[in-house]
Amino acid sequence: MSSDPSRFRLLGLSGSLRRASANTAVLRSLADALAPKAELTIFPLDEIPPYNQDHDGEKAPAAVRALKEAIAASDGLVVSSPEYNYGISGVLKNALDWASRPAMKSPMRGKPALIMTVSPAFTGGARAQYQLRETLSSMLARVVPRPQVVIAGVHEKVQDGRLVDEVALRFALEAVDDLLKEIALLRLRDAR
Amino acid sequence: MSSDPSRFRLLGLSGSLRRASANTAVLRSLADALAPKAELTIFPLDEIPPYNQDHDGEKAPAAVRALKEAIAASDGLVVSSPEYNYGISGVLKNALDWASRPAMKSPMRGKPALIMTVSPAFTGGARAQYQLRETLSSMLARVVPRPQVVIAGVHEKVQDGRLVDEVALRFALEAVDDLLKEIALLRLRDAR
Amino acid sequence: MSSDPSRFRLLGLSGSLRRASANTAVLRSLADALAPKAELTIFPLDEIPPYNQDHDGEKAPAAVRALKEAIAASDGLVVSSPEYNYGISGVLKNALDWASRPAMKSPMRGKPALIMTVSPAFTGGARAQYQLRETLSSMLARVVPRPQVVIAGVHEKVQDGRLVDEVALRFALEAVDDLLKEIALLRLRDAR
Amino acid sequence: MSSDPSRFRLLGLSGSLRRASANTAVLRSLADALAPKAELTIFPLDEIPPYNQDHDGEKAPAAVRALKEAIAASDGLVVSSPEYNYGISGVLKNALDWASRPAMKSPMRGKPALIMTVSPAFTGGARAQYQLRETLSSMLARVVPRPQVVIAGVHEKVQDGRLVDEVALRFALEAVDDLLKEIALLRLRDAR
Repeated sequence: MSSDPSRFRLLGLSGSLRRASANTAVLRSLADALAPKAELTIFPLDEIPPYNQDHDGEKAPAAVRALKEAIAASDGLVVSSPEYNYGISGVLKNALDWASRPAMKSPMRGKPALIMTVSPAFTGGARAQYQLRETLSSMLARVVPRPQVVIAGVHEKVQDGRLVDEVALRFALEAVDDLLKEIALLRLRDAR
Repeated sequence: MSSDPSRFRLLGLSGSLRRASANTAVLRSLADALAPKAELTIFPLDEIPPYNQDHDGEKAPAAVRALKEAIAASDGLVVSSPEYNYGISGVLKNALDWASRPAMKSPMRGKPALIMTVSPAFTGGARAQYQLRETLSSMLARVVPRPQVVIAGVHEKVQDGRLVDEVALRFALEAVDDLLKEIALLRLRDAR
Repeated sequence: MSSDPSRFRLLGLSGSLRRASANTAVLRSLADALAPKAELTIFPLDEIPPYNQDHDGEKAPAAVRALKEAIAASDGLVVSSPEYNYGISGVLKNALDWASRPAMKSPMRGKPALIMTVSPAFTGGARAQYQLRETLSSMLARVVPRPQVVIAGVHEKVQDGRLVDEVALRFALEAVDDLLKEIALLRLRDAR
Repeated sequence: MSSDPSRFRLLGLSGSLRRASANTAVLRSLADALAPKAELTIFPLDEIPPYNQDHDGEKAPAAVRALKEAIAASDGLVVSSPEYNYGISGVLKNALDWASRPAMKSPMRGKPALIMTVSPAFTGGARAQYQLRETLSSMLARVVPRPQVVIAGVHEKVQDGRLVDEVALRFALEAVDDLLKEIALLRLRDAR
């Protein structure tokens, strides 16, 4: 956790790996808009291999160890997923499977997390949200209780790797604000 | 589809990659028990990379193309998953994400599929079944309508890579029988 | 099941009880459009009391017995739900809880069922579909494998208790057609 | 909210209506064990009618108004459900549908809630937990982030309307303790 009580260190995870990913673009735009109040770093999931228990533990792949350290060092997560097959991407689920180990003692435990879905579809990926919430809840993360953050029709809202739709950006920033409040609440608890 | 009407070609997918995987062991034991009535081939998911839309389509990785061809060539699927974080493994979801493309025209469309969960936990992975059903349904597979196949406490039921618990094996074989009936039903339709 | 092989008897269940329900309006419009090829009867859930196991079995309420008889007498179901709290309505879940008894031997077993959601929201109730599928699958109904039927913004598409949007109606009718095909498939099986 | 900072007022909701309900028995036993540190009152859902929007609002049924007032007056909820058809009971979903209105301004908003499932099955109702979490999250309740509370094989653990299994009781009491901590955390926030 950050020692400066006035600053927040957030970690962004995007469930889509393609270069022009709208999910990554949204996270990037949030990072721009949040600085300097909060620092949002995106951890790319490209190097996270398919989960294999034989390779977990002491000998976990370097990218996996880096992911877990980045989670541990953060005050909270912003997890954004496309909707693949009515759920979150396997890519994101797989990264979270690694991050969740060892059970009950992983860096995910107690970590505040904001979830969102971003999609070209008119439903905005809303069908994936229950999987995202359930997955994070299973590893004892603190999913921020708030109305769903759903960005629909995103192909018309992203340009040059940035979210250019003002309404959607403001909407997402309000959600991040709720995440920051949750983090502040936990700091209050830990300060006692 | 197989041309010999008296034989069935099944494809087994295991959601766990570790060498001593109980899910893979169950599929292997089913393959032994089913021959020669049905041929169950296990397609290992080790080589399926994290899904990236930039690499999909014409230039899809060889392992992905092989997976899709194996699905297309099969009469039906037996999909077995561990429960990771109250859901199916990211590994399995990721493979299915690849297999589901292109939407509406993938080899998964209309494919009969039997789902099962195998786990050391007392719940037997039952919490992952709704994700497995929903994921397969989204890509228009025909999930066999039957009571859930759940094998619990599996660490005590597998030996030397085989399911050695007679009751569990018989239970799983009855489920495969329902899959074969579903395949037979579709053949009846297609023969008209 | 109907004895006339050229006709289909469908039962419609609406998850909303209000008089001007859009879900009921959609079912009513489907009934109009389907006749005389298929007869779609709507069974209103108003009289189904909250489920209480003490009142189940021999002494089940009259409305419950009527519901189960109507299901048994039908060739297939059209189940339409609003989205309440990211799920199906408690009203519908409660009616299905009654209908599902006794487990494994209820009139729901093996019954073909088309599911749809109808909502004023832009997401069209899509978030409720996984609950609807899972609930029906648990009681061994045969949920028709097809793309989701989602009618969004329905407050602008219903007038005088009828769905007046041609595109939405045609879309829903295509889905009913898939249900009829599923019923025909089972008749083929049972005729052997 | 209670004015005495050292006491907690909890409201218990049981998803099963039968007289000898194991879910109600668990809540009753928790009430006994918690006093006088916390006061757990069970609100019976027997009189809550099927949700009908025509009867909502100003003219809502007396039982519904009483439920919403009891929720508003409580510091937190303990919601216990059986598993019916892989989900929560329609009875419970229906009560929560009423309680969730009006959207964004209901007494459920921001309310800390502990969820649990109680069942004779070996899976302990675990399959219903995702619905319970999703339903409560949709109405902006604060579901306590902790390992699932699942009481399996409950028919052997309840006697004379009380949970007589010490291990299960202690397990459930630890969970209530997490709920009390969550309530204390919010009091800390509100006191600033």
